[in-house]
Amino acid sequence: MSANSGKHHVVIIGSGFGGLFAAKELGNKDVEVTLISKTSHHLFQPLLYQVATGILSEGDIAPTTRDIVQRQRNVRVILGDVTDIDVESRAVHSESLNQHTVTHYDSLIVAAGAGQSYFGNNHFSRFAPGMKSIDDALELRGRIFGSFELAETSTDPDQRRRLLTFVVVGAGPTGVEMAGQIAELAQRTLADEFRQIDPGEAHVILVDAAPKVLPSFGDRLSVKAQRSLEKQGVEVQLDAMVTDVDQYGIQVKDPDGSHRTIETMTKVWAAGVAASPLGAMLAEQTGSEVDRAGRLHVEDDLTVPGHPEIFVVGDMVNLKGYPGVAQLAIQGGRYAGRAIVRRLEGKEEQGAFRYRDKGSMATISKYSAVASIGRINFTGFLAWLAWLAVHLMAMVGFKNRISTLLNWIITFVGDNRNERVSTFQQVFARTAMQDLGPSAYPDLSDRADDDDEESERNAS
Amino acid sequence: MSANSGKHHVVIIGSGFGGLFAAKELGNKDVEVTLISKTSHHLFQPLLYQVATGILSEGDIAPTTRDIVQRQRNVRVILGDVTDIDVESRAVHSESLNQHTVTHYDSLIVAAGAGQSYFGNNHFSRFAPGMKSIDDALELRGRIFGSFELAETSTDPDQRRRLLTFVVVGAGPTGVEMAGQIAELAQRTLADEFRQIDPGEAHVILVDAAPKVLPSFGDRLSVKAQRSLEKQGVEVQLDAMVTDVDQYGIQVKDPDGSHRTIETMTKVWAAGVAASPLGAMLAEQTGSEVDRAGRLHVEDDLTVPGHPEIFVVGDMVNLKGYPGVAQLAIQGGRYAGRAIVRRLEGKEEQGAFRYRDKGSMATISKYSAVASIGRINFTGFLAWLAWLAVHLMAMVGFKNRISTLLNWIITFVGDNRNERVSTFQQVFARTAMQDLGPSAYPDLSDRADDDDEESERNAS
Repeated sequence: MSANSGKHHVVIIGSGFGGLFAAKELGNKDVEVTLISKTSHHLFQPLLYQVATGILSEGDIAPTTRDIVQRQRNVRVILGDVTDIDVESRAVHSESLNQHTVTHYDSLIVAAGAGQSYFGNNHFSRFAPGMKSIDDALELRGRIFGSFELAETSTDPDQRRRLLTFVVVGAGPTGVEMAGQIAELAQRTLADEFRQIDPGEAHVILVDAAPKVLPSFGDRLSVKAQRSLEKQGVEVQLDAMVTDVDQYGIQVKDPDGSHRTIETMTKVWAAGVAASPLGAMLAEQTGSEVDRAGRLHVEDDLTVPGHPEIFVVGDMVNLKGYPGVAQLAIQGGRYAGRAIVRRLEGKEEQGAFRYRDKGSMATISKYSAVASIGRINFTGFLAWLAWLAVHLMAMVGFKNRISTLLNWIITFVGDNRNERVSTFQQVFARTAMQDLGPSAYPDLSDRADDDDEESERNAS
Repeated sequence: MSANSGKHHVVIIGSGFGGLFAAKELGNKDVEVTLISKTSHHLFQPLLYQVATGILSEGDIAPTTRDIVQRQRNVRVILGDVTDIDVESRAVHSESLNQHTVTHYDSLIVAAGAGQSYFGNNHFSRFAPGMKSIDDALELRGRIFGSFELAETSTDPDQRRRLLTFVVVGAGPTGVEMAGQIAELAQRTLADEFRQIDPGEAHVILVDAAPKVLPSFGDRLSVKAQRSLEKQGVEVQLDAMVTDVDQYGIQVKDPDGSHRTIETMTKVWAAGVAASPLGAMLAEQTGSEVDRAGRLHVEDDLTVPGHPEIFVVGDMVNLKGYPGVAQLAIQGGRYAGRAIVRRLEGKEEQGAFRYRDKGSMATISKYSAVASIGRINFTGFLAWLAWLAVHLMAMVGFKNRISTLLNWIITFVGDNRNERVSTFQQVFARTAMQDLGPSAYPDLSDRADDDDEESERNAS
C-alpha cells in the first residue's frame, strides 16, 4: 500500500503520545499519513494506575485513535503489529490476525514506545504484571480486588496474610502512585464492605533497589514523598534488590547481602522499561547504535544517522539524557511532523530538537501530591490541585475529561470507586495460575543465585 | 461456616436481581444473611448490550455487590461458585480458586438465574458468544469493533464483506436492541472514521425461527418494531432456523425446507436461556420437577415442594407462566425475604406470590422505542423517554446513574461512544480462533443434518 494520491506519504508507527501528536501536526497538511498501531486506542498512560485500582474505566484513558483524528482527513489509521521495517525499500510490514500489510513511505516516524523490562527475568512477568497496557491494568485490577475477595473466605491465617500483602516493585512515579492507591482503597473504599477481614490491615510494600523514592524529583521531594507514603501506611523498603518472584512471594536482597522473602499473592512490576525492539531493528540496518535499554542514538534532529527520512521519537530515543516521559514524546512527535512539512515547503530546517522540561508530578494520596516544575518544588494540597488540572488538560478529548472528572469526584469526594469490575478471565483464568498456596511456604532465598542478582542490578 | 450469632441464618445464592433484592429486604433485620455469588458484582443485565456496543463501561452496569449492601451490617457477601446444595443437611458448598467453603443455612433463597442456551449445540458458543455476562459483552465489543478494524486493511472483497456482516440470532428484546445498536454505531459513530471502507455499508441481520420480532409485546408493537428496525437498515429474517454456526458463517433453514448460508465473522447469540443447573440439583433431591429450560416447578409461595425453608426466585422458576424478566426476580426476591421475616416474627403468611407485570420496553434506535405497559402500548420518542427514565431509576446506585446518564448524552446527543476499548485478549486471543478465512467459502448447508435442526426448534 502506498499513497494513492501521489502525495508525499508519511508513515507513523505507534498511537501513543509521539505518534498521535505527529499525526495531529501533519493533519490536513499537503501529505498523506498512515498511522499503524497494534492497539486501536491512544493510551493515556499516566493514569493507567487509576484503571488498575478501580477509579477510571478503560474508555476514560483510552479513546479510539481513529475517533481522535477523524477530522484530519489525510490521516489513515490501521491496526497492525509492525513486524519489519525495510529501510532500503522504505517499507513497513505489519500484521493483524492473518492479514499481512506492506506500507511504503517517503518519510517515517517511529514512535513505538517502550514496554516493561524484567531485566532478563521474563518469567517474573507471569507473577508480577507490568503497568504498560490496558490488559496489564485490567489484569491487576482483577488481582487486587480478587485478593480481598479470596481473603474474606480464607480460613488459613498464613494464606490470608499473603492475600492481604501487596508488593509494588519500583519507586518511580508509577510505583509510588500505585502503592498509594492500593493503600487508599484498602483503608477508605473497602472500609465497611467486609465482615471477616479488615481491609485496613492490608500490608502495602514499595520496594526499590535504589536508595530513594522518586529519584528524578530531587532530594527534598523524595524525602517528602516517602514520608507521605509512610503516613499513609505504605512500607517503603529501599536498597532492596528483587532477586526472584514466584506465585507466593518475592525474594529481596538487602544491602548486607542477606536474602529474605516477602510472602505476597499480588505483585506489581513498575521497575524498568525497555524500548520497542524496532529500535534495534533500525540500528542493525543503518549501522547506528542502541543503549542497554534498547533506545536508539539519534541525530540532534531526531533522525536516524544517514537516514534523514526516518525520525524516532519518545521512549525509543537516547539523546542528551532526555527522560522517558510523555512530554518528550509529545514534543518529539510535533517536531518530526513540523520538520517534514518544512522540508516539503522548501523552508529551512528548524534546528536541533530541544526538550523543554515542563516539570513532573506524582500523587501520593487523596489531596496530596509532589510537583517539581522548573526550579519550583511544591507538595501537599496545592500540588494535588496542580496535578489534577494538568492531567485533565493533557487528556485527549472533551468527553474523556468530563467522564474522568466525574469519576474523580466519586473517588476523591465519595471514597467510592465506580470501576471495580473484573472479568472471569481476569479473576480466575489468569489468577488460577496461582493457587492459594500452602501455609508452610518454602523460603525463596534457598533458590537465590548470583546470576539473578546481576540482572536486577539495573532495576533502579 | 454457620451463623456466628446463633441467629436464624439465611443463605442467598446469586447476586442478580433476585438475590440482591432478597438481601436488601433482609438487611438489618434480626437474621444473619450470607450471599454467595460467582461474580463480585451485581449485573444490570438489561443494559449489557450497551457495554458490548461501546456506550457504557462495565462499571456502569456492574456495581460491586458488597459495596451495595455495605450498610446492611447483617449481610455478608462471599465469592464462590456453588457446586452443591445438600438439602438434607442444609448446607451449600461453594468454591473460589482452591478454597472450598461449606455454609449451613436455616433458610435458603436460590436466585442463580439463567445462562445462554444453544439448544444442545454448545459448539456454537465459540463462534457466537451469548449476552449473559460482562465477559460476553466485552468479548462481543472486541469482535464488533475489531471486525471494522480488520475490514479496513482487508484487500479481499469476500473477506471484507464477511467482516462487515453482523448476524444477531434471536429477536427478543436483547437481540432487537443489539441489532439496532450495531446498525446505529456503523452508520453514525463510525461514519467519518475510516478511509478505505464505508462503515455505513455494514450489513446487520436479525434472524429468528419465530414468525415475528418481540413476540411477547403483542402484534401491533411487533410490527412497529420490525418496521423501525428495517428503516434503520437492519435486515429482519423471520421463520429462519439456525442449523449450524462456524467461524465464517451461519446456516439457516427457511420455511420451504431449503438451507442457505450467511457469511459473517461476527455472530451474536441472543436466542435462548437455560436455568441454572442448581434447579435440577434441587429437583433431584426433593423429587420435584424441572421443565425443558431447567426451571423448577415451585409452590405458589415460591418454595420447593416439601421444603418450606427453600425459596427459588427469578429465571429459575416455572410458575403460572410468569415470564423470565427482571421484575419477576425483583418481586420474587422481596417476597422470599419478607416471608422469612414474617415467619420468624410469628406473623401469618403473606399468601401466594403474585407477579405484577410492570410492562416491557425495548429501544430500537436513538429516540425510538416500543413500550407496553398494562394495556397501553406506545412507540417512538415518548416510549424512548419512558425507557430512559425507567432504566435510570431501576439502576442500583446513584453514582452509576450519573455516569450512565453522562455516557448516554455522549452517545445520543454526540453520536460518540466513550467505551470502545478492547483488550488484546478480546481482539486477538479469542478472535484468533477465527482466522479471516478463504475467499471461496464452502457452503455450510452441505453439513446440515436433521439432528441439528431438531435441537434448534426450541429456539423461538
